[in-house]
Amino acid sequence: MAKYKMILDLDTGIDDALALAYALADQDCDLIGIIGSYGNVLVEQGTQNSLDLLALLGASNVPVYEGLSHSSTTSNFAVQPVSARIHGNNGIANLKIKHTPKKIEKQSGVDFLIEAIHKYQKDLLLVPTGPLTNLAAAIKKDPTITKLIGHVTLMGGALTVPGNVSPVSEANIHQDPEAADEVFKSDIPLTMVGLDVTTRTLLTRNETQIWRNLHTKAGEVYADLVDYYIDAYKQTNPHLGGCALHDPLAVAAALEPNLLQTVYLNIKVDTIAPFEGRTIGDEARLNIPATTTQAAINVDVLRFITKFMERLTTLFENH
Amino acid sequence: MAKYKMILDLDTGIDDALALAYALADQDCDLIGIIGSYGNVLVEQGTQNSLDLLALLGASNVPVYEGLSHSSTTSNFAVQPVSARIHGNNGIANLKIKHTPKKIEKQSGVDFLIEAIHKYQKDLLLVPTGPLTNLAAAIKKDPTITKLIGHVTLMGGALTVPGNVSPVSEANIHQDPEAADEVFKSDIPLTMVGLDVTTRTLLTRNETQIWRNLHTKAGEVYADLVDYYIDAYKQTNPHLGGCALHDPLAVAAALEPNLLQTVYLNIKVDTIAPFEGRTIGDEARLNIPATTTQAAINVDVLRFITKFMERLTTLFENH
Repeated sequence: MAKYKMILDLDTGIDDALALAYALADQDCDLIGIIGSYGNVLVEQGTQNSLDLLALLGASNVPVYEGLSHSSTTSNFAVQPVSARIHGNNGIANLKIKHTPKKIEKQSGVDFLIEAIHKYQKDLLLVPTGPLTNLAAAIKKDPTITKLIGHVTLMGGALTVPGNVSPVSEANIHQDPEAADEVFKSDIPLTMVGLDVTTRTLLTRNETQIWRNLHTKAGEVYADLVDYYIDAYKQTNPHLGGCALHDPLAVAAALEPNLLQTVYLNIKVDTIAPFEGRTIGDEARLNIPATTTQAAINVDVLRFITKFMERLTTLFENH
Repeated sequence: MAKYKMILDLDTGIDDALALAYALADQDCDLIGIIGSYGNVLVEQGTQNSLDLLALLGASNVPVYEGLSHSSTTSNFAVQPVSARIHGNNGIANLKIKHTPKKIEKQSGVDFLIEAIHKYQKDLLLVPTGPLTNLAAAIKKDPTITKLIGHVTLMGGALTVPGNVSPVSEANIHQDPEAADEVFKSDIPLTMVGLDVTTRTLLTRNETQIWRNLHTKAGEVYADLVDYYIDAYKQTNPHLGGCALHDPLAVAAALEPNLLQTVYLNIKVDTIAPFEGRTIGDEARLNIPATTTQAAINVDVLRFITKFMERLTTLFENH
């Protein structure tokens, strides 16, 4: 039996698709819902991608909810050109995958999150891999959830390395620095899985070839997705020699925290240019012991990549 | 017998004065020389302060050498108003302490450093508490020293917390980012003791009163110095509730590295505005295992403060 209930909050581009697959493939994980967010794509595209990928992987029973469509400080959202370059215009490498007839749920993503936290409490893990807009909105609507939830393991931020949308800022946090600041300053139990670790976990065409060789629909789609992503990384991050497994690492670390080396640190998010979106220790709370907030600073790369390939390859064999 | 030979590279303001006292007071440490640097004060003022403090503490046998007077990319240096506010116009709280007749050595600080590294090799610890201009110049003049020296434990930088002269930059590194970048990118064995840890080790008037109660000249001078520094911190960093023991922590950690929790990380220094002077993981070397560079991310505060007070109080009792 699965040890944990998990909710993913995805802006479903390519590494979100990998995170979704990892959550489905891990025996410890009961994926009870996906909340759609904006970021790599518009929220409508992201939720459709999640529905279609779930169908591809035989998991149409997992409900998908629509989250908020833009940041807490703006009135609309447009996809950045760099996001479209890395993930494709449709977030999934411009592939035309089969549309499922399944629709999104009527309940809002924020309300689903609040309800699930009350229902499952410490058994519930939340993994946001996009902006923290939905989580901040949920905390604002029901502040009691911060003490109820099991753990939040978010992909976002950069503590000991430069950002990827500015020298100081990582893309997810940069989308809504104010929401991220509220989440970090709340007392929610939280692990930040930032570029510090995700850019150490890399996939290459050697691995996607293994999926392609499965000769299954899922193996083929995921090989195509990740090959596109690898090619994009060659343009944007040629020094890495592969594509970064940002979002699936957050899922894996939520289930097995000891994949990461972390530091406890009270974190704030800068909201003023040119430093907006920076995640950094909060000097005003430096000497208050950090008890609920950890930042990942290193990762057991080999153990993670091995688990990742085992789980996803097994999943893709059967779909 | 002392276990280590130590050279201090000081821009002697108030916490440099505490670093100097710590090095003299620790039985494991044989302080073989002080190199003067610019920063909190002009280099001439800094070397004079070091000479006078050594005389006050009965250590006029320790030679003082003059280092470079400005950064590697400028032709002169002027003390920043904030430095004068924190350390006093003369670097030592505007106190008029007795001038020693002792003079600085004729050999340059850079040449002394190179010579000492060749002589003492792995037994030699270097603790720079100002800009890294002298060390970078020594490496440039004799690149072999990086493999010979025991360890460099520098006070400077900020990895997981904001800077103190800009949101991203700490004062020592900010004085000469190019020199610091060269040092960090060399293969010298190095520990960065930055604001991440030094702003956790605080002194208050409770401690300076202990020194004042000794009724010795040194106790009185150091109590006056640090009270001035505490008052300055009240203005500039009211949230801390004391003054930060930046420079003496670097000396203590050089002698007892396990006072610190560190991470191995290949570090670079940004040199372009508005990020100049930022110490951050080098994304181009993130996946090359860091073997010679560590950054301190936490400190055993109680153990350090206890040692600090024991050593300095004993020293001041006798002078």
